[in-house]
Amino acid sequence: MDAGKESLETARKAWEEQKLKPALERLPERRDRFETGSGIPVKRLYTPEDTADIDPDADIGMPGEYPFTRGIRPTMYRGRLWTMRQYAGFGSAEETNARYRYLLSQGQTGLSVAFDLPTQIGYDSDHPMVAGEVGRTGVAISTIDDMRTLFDEIPQESVSTSLTINATATVLVALYAAVAEERGVPLERLAGTVQNDILKEYIARGTFIYPPGPSLRLATDLIRFCAGSMPKWNPISISGYHIREAGATAVQEVAFTLANGLGYVKAVTDAGMDVDAFAPQLSFFFNAHNQFFEEVAKFRAARRLWARLMRERVGAKNPRSWQLRFHTQTGGSTLTAQQPENNVVRVALQALAAVCGGTQSLHTNSLDEALALPSESAATLALRTQQVIAHETGVADTVDPFAGSYFVEALTGEIEEAAKAHLERIDGYGGALGAIEAGYPQEEISRSAYACQMAVEREEQVIVGVNRFTGDDEEGPAPFPIDPAIEARQVERVRAFRKARDGRAAARALEALETAARTQDNLIPLIIDAVRGRATLGEICDTLRGVFGEYRRPERF
Amino acid sequence: MDAGKESLETARKAWEEQKLKPALERLPERRDRFETGSGIPVKRLYTPEDTADIDPDADIGMPGEYPFTRGIRPTMYRGRLWTMRQYAGFGSAEETNARYRYLLSQGQTGLSVAFDLPTQIGYDSDHPMVAGEVGRTGVAISTIDDMRTLFDEIPQESVSTSLTINATATVLVALYAAVAEERGVPLERLAGTVQNDILKEYIARGTFIYPPGPSLRLATDLIRFCAGSMPKWNPISISGYHIREAGATAVQEVAFTLANGLGYVKAVTDAGMDVDAFAPQLSFFFNAHNQFFEEVAKFRAARRLWARLMRERVGAKNPRSWQLRFHTQTGGSTLTAQQPENNVVRVALQALAAVCGGTQSLHTNSLDEALALPSESAATLALRTQQVIAHETGVADTVDPFAGSYFVEALTGEIEEAAKAHLERIDGYGGALGAIEAGYPQEEISRSAYACQMAVEREEQVIVGVNRFTGDDEEGPAPFPIDPAIEARQVERVRAFRKARDGRAAARALEALETAARTQDNLIPLIIDAVRGRATLGEICDTLRGVFGEYRRPERF
Repeated sequence: MDAGKESLETARKAWEEQKLKPALERLPERRDRFETGSGIPVKRLYTPEDTADIDPDADIGMPGEYPFTRGIRPTMYRGRLWTMRQYAGFGSAEETNARYRYLLSQGQTGLSVAFDLPTQIGYDSDHPMVAGEVGRTGVAISTIDDMRTLFDEIPQESVSTSLTINATATVLVALYAAVAEERGVPLERLAGTVQNDILKEYIARGTFIYPPGPSLRLATDLIRFCAGSMPKWNPISISGYHIREAGATAVQEVAFTLANGLGYVKAVTDAGMDVDAFAPQLSFFFNAHNQFFEEVAKFRAARRLWARLMRERVGAKNPRSWQLRFHTQTGGSTLTAQQPENNVVRVALQALAAVCGGTQSLHTNSLDEALALPSESAATLALRTQQVIAHETGVADTVDPFAGSYFVEALTGEIEEAAKAHLERIDGYGGALGAIEAGYPQEEISRSAYACQMAVEREEQVIVGVNRFTGDDEEGPAPFPIDPAIEARQVERVRAFRKARDGRAAARALEALETAARTQDNLIPLIIDAVRGRATLGEICDTLRGVFGEYRRPERF
Repeated sequence: MDAGKESLETARKAWEEQKLKPALERLPERRDRFETGSGIPVKRLYTPEDTADIDPDADIGMPGEYPFTRGIRPTMYRGRLWTMRQYAGFGSAEETNARYRYLLSQGQTGLSVAFDLPTQIGYDSDHPMVAGEVGRTGVAISTIDDMRTLFDEIPQESVSTSLTINATATVLVALYAAVAEERGVPLERLAGTVQNDILKEYIARGTFIYPPGPSLRLATDLIRFCAGSMPKWNPISISGYHIREAGATAVQEVAFTLANGLGYVKAVTDAGMDVDAFAPQLSFFFNAHNQFFEEVAKFRAARRLWARLMRERVGAKNPRSWQLRFHTQTGGSTLTAQQPENNVVRVALQALAAVCGGTQSLHTNSLDEALALPSESAATLALRTQQVIAHETGVADTVDPFAGSYFVEALTGEIEEAAKAHLERIDGYGGALGAIEAGYPQEEISRSAYACQMAVEREEQVIVGVNRFTGDDEEGPAPFPIDPAIEARQVERVRAFRKARDGRAAARALEALETAARTQDNLIPLIIDAVRGRATLGEICDTLRGVFGEYRRPERF
């Protein structure tokens, strides 16, 4: 081994002297320093010297086995392709239902519901404050009738669905469960995910309602509820995606996401539940950004680091508790309004990185997603992008194709180490919640976002069509139109819903919820009762606002 | 080392028993057998066991050093990005010149001239037989005036140009050189390539004029001429591209291309030139097809195999003679007329494979290239695809990023071995020319093309939008229009050229060419004399037809 090392070093040094030096004299390199977006230096050449300290057994191992560097399943995509799960929703439940049925008919294999802003922050469509926002960035869902329409003719027992929502996650799961119950689909058969990651809303995304403490309690209640009653449901999707979109680096994305994951684990175990009773149901959500090799390495590093944290630090015993399962979305912030067809290229390359990194499901952005809601044709092309990767490129035919690559293995190790350094600093704040309250991740992300912006302005980072290769007068795709009549109809529908129901039953259920919110009881059964009793989303959230209060972001962030 | 091997084997066997077996029982794999397009079995998992026999020194080595597996330059794209060289041409010299100037203004870094069919098969634009074909698949060039117009305001001394033509390669180089001479640009400063690979025309592409023997002599004359007079010019681009397009596998593409390469080397050394006097100027041209990892491995395997053949078998001494330098074009035959925007995705992924495989220059196909000549906007998007890869993904920042990957290293070795097996069979025919005359590569390619077609028909090979995920009623891009008036104007221009010249000077030069063609003299200086004397392309080729005769493809192919 040492003899081998020595001969490698000798060979490299001879090459540097005899080949590299004259080559650099003839032609200097394009930059003085190459580095990844995370600031990890990128060497000219990676050789076996760079992987000499990586233990093929302990660090890389086998797929489906601790530390899961090579993937969470022994056969990965040879068994089953990733779930092609496009995030979609707009207008009212009817329009969105039609889009879902279209996408499923085109070969999409899972759903992900995009909700409008009122639904995300707990207001019914007819609330005066949200006028003009109904159905704009996603589908408007205020009532059990809306949810029933949304899944009309879509079999809840077989299509896996992501409810991509956070502050009101508990209400949307309750609505989804209540509709399933009406159809005779037992809760234990429902497969899917709810995002329910409120911590990252304070770090990055901003759609919170209540202060962090009660928000974390609601998230925790949902995790505990699903552990008992919805075993095939992921009650949380701990999300690095938005952290990355806000400007974090790949390393920060891993670090802050896993820190939040540990935060949820602590919250649930503090509530008295054994880690192995719920950890197998935790899921994650990452970004697939531009830098191809760093992204592949990132997914591998995140998987290994989470496995080590859960086993060695948290003490989970069940191997399924160690597995980091994740959804990926290609990087929305990398898309450009200029020369929008270039986005098709970016998305394809990012999606390839996600697949080579072993994602469990994938959303590929539409080329017009930087501008507007995706049109049907743009959404279809985004789905086709996944289908081409899955069926034409052969990349799904072997497990973890990058394993052993000197560069990718070295980068995997460096990302893991750098993320661990952030986790140590977060430990110093007493964990994710404390760090968020102190503004640590927020400030780190701001700094990265600023550095990135400077690099673009100085043209050290080229964005094709934006700061170089500009000037085509290409016309962008026409923004996808939302008919303004949709909002009026939806407002009318919510009002009619309230008029037609037994108001006393709704009121009783809301009172029970309010009482329970003042205790430590799990609120999920009461929220399900409330939607069964035809209380609306807005009413449920108002009830909880009354108990928990509302959160305002401190000025400094 | 042996202890390490044993422990790997033990670990793998334990994993197979404890993890894999139950996983396969729960969920069988998607296919019974996974393989690459070349029929190389793709294993579920590649581990250090699969690279145990690969010698990091002798088989992988260092970039810029024998056997060049990791690339031909020590710093690869850190020094200089690949040349973005889009193949383009249509109508007459004016239209094409305008497109070139546009593409150069958009950041393209090299040119590649697409010629129309009459120019490729040696007929002037006004020849009655080619009516209707002028300027259709490329630019029409019959005279020195056409060539001068084609490069109007384009500096021949600094823009590297590929004259992408074969049977009439000698004439086009003569025209290019004569125009440079008029401008005072010395021949030794001209950088670029002429395709001039006539052997593959008999195997795959079909645009030959003369029988193989005299054709090979013309190619050889050009190689010998450039070795003396145009040292920065690649006098041949030995092309696997069309072999692949005709249905060959990746392995066959490597094997038949390198076999042809050896054929040219033999022809030139047989003519008395030392191999190291011309081999550094040989260049190659490959396809970047769909199967991502097989393509990356193919480029690495081709480089290593050529280096070994040239050093060990041919006995070349100059390290530059061992270097396989190549241009790549993404796979035209992978594009679909259905759902043409999917082609943007295919091209992006294929281009990434070419770059990761270390190409020296790259043409990315336009999304409409399966249908028609590329429109300006489609051609621009194709160029943008390269720019996104070059500037946004970071893949150009380290050399040979796949080195060490268990999968890619194993595949590199397997492709090399399989290609060597074909080369041995070709040796049995006495080399490339004999094998082509016996129909060996042609039959092998037909068999592969047929197998591939069957796989598509049986849906074992999915083509998105063609045999699955069909039915979008997307409208394709409008075919790029060629104004029919262009042909009439070009015909007129050629007639006027003949009328205006000193006909006796042209006739004298053609007579001298005819005389020399009956000897073993190098014909290139005489062809240059002829174009200087204002002989046309058609006249030169007619003269040579008179001496060499014309070739008809035997019925069996």
